[in-house]
Amino acid sequence: MKPDFTLYAVTDRSYLNGRDLVEAVEEAIKAGITVLQLREKNAPGREFYELALRLRELTRVYGIPFIINDRVDIALAVDADGVHVGQEDIPADVARKIIGPGKILGVSASTVEEAIRAEQDGADYLGAGAVFPSPTKPSSEAIGLEGLKKIKNAVKIPVVAIGGITGDNAKEVTATGVDGICCISAVFCGDITENVIALRRTISASKKS
Amino acid sequence: MKPDFTLYAVTDRSYLNGRDLVEAVEEAIKAGITVLQLREKNAPGREFYELALRLRELTRVYGIPFIINDRVDIALAVDADGVHVGQEDIPADVARKIIGPGKILGVSASTVEEAIRAEQDGADYLGAGAVFPSPTKPSSEAIGLEGLKKIKNAVKIPVVAIGGITGDNAKEVTATGVDGICCISAVFCGDITENVIALRRTISASKKS
Ligand code: NI
Repeated sequence: MKPDFTLYAVTDRSYLNGRDLVEAVEEAIKAGITVLQLREKNAPGREFYELALRLRELTRVYGIPFIINDRVDIALAVDADGVHVGQEDIPADVARKIIGPGKILGVSASTVEEAIRAEQDGADYLGAGAVFPSPTKPSSEAIGLEGLKKIKNAVKIPVVAIGGITGDNAKEVTATGVDGICCISAVFCGDITENVIALRRTISASKKS
Repeated sequence: MKPDFTLYAVTDRSYLNGRDLVEAVEEAIKAGITVLQLREKNAPGREFYELALRLRELTRVYGIPFIINDRVDIALAVDADGVHVGQEDIPADVARKIIGPGKILGVSASTVEEAIRAEQDGADYLGAGAVFPSPTKPSSEAIGLEGLKKIKNAVKIPVVAIGGITGDNAKEVTATGVDGICCISAVFCGDITENVIALRRTISASKKS
């Protein structure tokens, strides 16, 4: 499976004002996201598993790759298409051993060293960032467009930019040559359909120019 | 593998006053614990994995069954002997599918219904409790010695009592006929060797009487 990473959406229920996550994701898929990652850092295992089951069904119906953050066991349990691990999660090579060769493995990288190591450890793609500061990442952790380009140039696998990406900066991020952008609030905050359509339009325009 | 559940110790670094967990566990094993469960609710995946690797090595040297709490992926990653899931974790039947038939599956149960369901779902043993109230479990959640007996009588698999068990009440808990007692602070708070030796003495005395 070679995913189209153009617009990679990551869930966060805190942006939904109580709206059902599965409904919100369905709206985002219909509007044009190309990959879905379920990330629920604070959900107990059972709740995470049950959400994952519902999103697995939905993403299968729409033919969208479904990635689980961190919990390799839950990815196996629901037969997700892949798993995404950060530098604080299970090591990438260990995750690869558990999921086997057929699943997608994504790894977060904020430096060229981490990026090269992840590629060697069997990553199928990188989540590179945080590109910009955000409420959860101080500016000291942001790698900027220059850091992003360095990572993109250092590896052969696809690179998805993550961290503080919005409709306003998506154009310059895409212009770095990355394979996709990863959005959380830029997709799920507010009008999801409008958000996704605007992001896709910006990305296409940037790729053509 | 048929574990001896007599004295089942569960880790909690918060009781160690900064002492190295692996050292503390080695002392507990030498003094006579019979099963070790690694439980680290708030550790990031990588840290949990690295602790699990070290404890896997140690428990293998001493021939003690090594169980991982909740994280089925980490149990697989370090080749633990088994995994323990609570009612809020991945469902027991799903955990069984992921770990396969050869690994030990433990399930927490606080009612006869949960106990029977867990047995049907493939549990190899139950952690029944909380028997007594404790700082983390209010008295409304405690099942008492009567609740414990009911669970023990409802299933064929071994039952390990958990929750508020100390040197002072270990005798009456063992006298219910359970297959073992599960201790956290009663093992790891204070002098570990003394704690374990006293607990083992109490358990043996209770089994004989
Ligand atoms: Ni967890």
